Amino acid sequence: MKTSVSTADYLNRSVLEIEEALHMSLPQEWDIPPALRESMMYSLEAGGKRLRPILVLTAAEAVHSNSLARSQAMPVACAIEMIHTYSLIHDDLPAMDNDDYRRGKLTNHKVYGDAMAILAGDGLLTHAFYAITRSAALGTPPETALAIVSDLARLAGAPGMVGGQAADILGEQGVTSLAELEYIHLHKTSDLIVFSVLAGARIGGATQQQLESLQQFARKLGLAFQIQDDILDLIGDEAKLGKPVQSDVQQQKVTYPFLLGMEKSVALVERLTEESKQALADAKLANPDNLMAIADYLMNRDH
Amino acid sequence: MKTSVSTADYLNRSVLEIEEALHMSLPQEWDIPPALRESMMYSLEAGGKRLRPILVLTAAEAVHSNSLARSQAMPVACAIEMIHTYSLIHDDLPAMDNDDYRRGKLTNHKVYGDAMAILAGDGLLTHAFYAITRSAALGTPPETALAIVSDLARLAGAPGMVGGQAADILGEQGVTSLAELEYIHLHKTSDLIVFSVLAGARIGGATQQQLESLQQFARKLGLAFQIQDDILDLIGDEAKLGKPVQSDVQQQKVTYPFLLGMEKSVALVERLTEESKQALADAKLANPDNLMAIADYLMNRDH
Repeated sequence: MKTSVSTADYLNRSVLEIEEALHMSLPQEWDIPPALRESMMYSLEAGGKRLRPILVLTAAEAVHSNSLARSQAMPVACAIEMIHTYSLIHDDLPAMDNDDYRRGKLTNHKVYGDAMAILAGDGLLTHAFYAITRSAALGTPPETALAIVSDLARLAGAPGMVGGQAADILGEQGVTSLAELEYIHLHKTSDLIVFSVLAGARIGGATQQQLESLQQFARKLGLAFQIQDDILDLIGDEAKLGKPVQSDVQQQKVTYPFLLGMEKSVALVERLTEESKQALADAKLANPDNLMAIADYLMNRDH
Repeated sequence: MKTSVSTADYLNRSVLEIEEALHMSLPQEWDIPPALRESMMYSLEAGGKRLRPILVLTAAEAVHSNSLARSQAMPVACAIEMIHTYSLIHDDLPAMDNDDYRRGKLTNHKVYGDAMAILAGDGLLTHAFYAITRSAALGTPPETALAIVSDLARLAGAPGMVGGQAADILGEQGVTSLAELEYIHLHKTSDLIVFSVLAGARIGGATQQQLESLQQFARKLGLAFQIQDDILDLIGDEAKLGKPVQSDVQQQKVTYPFLLGMEKSVALVERLTEESKQALADAKLANPDNLMAIADYLMNRDH
């Protein structure tokens, strides 16, 4: 199955909108050392699928389809991209994965040095929380903005993404069980996807029951996304991926295809995607079509 | 002038209270990789003056002297200590200052490795924002909690502490002007002191005018604090400082005594302290005595 033209078009339009907002997200009037500002913006504007911010915007509209929800969601969309970006900067450092390239460009520390890369990451992580307060300035109720702060601090923090990274590093030579690998994937990847969907839905005014169904949707979607990444690393097209295939194999990373085999991994992506779509249907949103389309798009992507 | 017995007693009692709260600040029920949890707590519980959290608690009580303000301020007191601690962990890394000891103990990366130290710092930074949301759960109005999130994200972020760190690194061989040194000190040190005083005062229910006077108080207090640190590095007692004297000289750091001479630096600490106390008096708080006493204590400390 191919991604439909209208879905591709929706995603492309969203990317442009998000990149414009990201470009403006660090106030010009703030007195920031130029090298630090440049280093932060270098990575924030380095491209990528912008999947997480798209999910924030799309979830907000799915619950409450007017343009106000989308504009109130935009600062939070920028926030999650700042978190994702900082995690890549720190992950690429020599002390962590020691990567020289990311998306075909030199990694942050290769351009600005290790010290500035650490600080650029710290700056982006901190600024994400400022961005959430900007959503309140656009009319998001303070209780809602505060719930989003709390979600982000958990899902991106030690019990979330940072915990997933730590487990990944600790287990680098030793992950042998599916349970360990699932912990890493759930926290390294799913938690930010869960945050994105919940934050958008909160801004759209979702009920508690809707939030619970959407959490299931996002959790399964995130896991399917990560397993698909593992699969593409083995059989993908280098030009489309923007990185060498089989880099996980070379780095001796334990992946789903490694533990389960390719056939079962492909089937698992399909099953998780179907289950995520069922959870989304259970949420009974006003306008779920774009979220549904994103689930299909992720399963069928080739990069 | 010596610190009075009652001030010393107040500070000691506050440290005990804060250390108890810090010990409980990372929920036991959260599923965090044990090595990450241990690394975060190792640095959070490594001692220190706990000046920033004491200022949060004391400012809250100074505006509104009842025990509710102090208990609502406690999670925010923990938050600023998490920020201060993460900044030390990242600052000590080989890519930054490359320090092996801090307060007489091995630095985080010497015990847990560079990768885990980076993640422990990221985890503490992120968790600080969670702690602020806990203050709202204790009754701090959501608008107030959100203003505190916004303050922290600015004052600890790229236009604040992270910017000060970046300027410090960029200027390491080249700081020649007092203006540059003031930028570094204001952001590396004063900004977190300003945050602490403002956050406490917000929880106590300060008026806008009081917040403005308190911002002046904290800014000057922070600068005096940092210059006093520079002075103690030159003439202090190693046993009391817990680090070798003249380490700044060995590291060829440009300091106030280096630029102004010792006599003028001592006079500047006195002048800034007097000005800070005047700004504090201008705020006309219900109960300013402990804040006043802290200003005197900082000027007269020997470690």
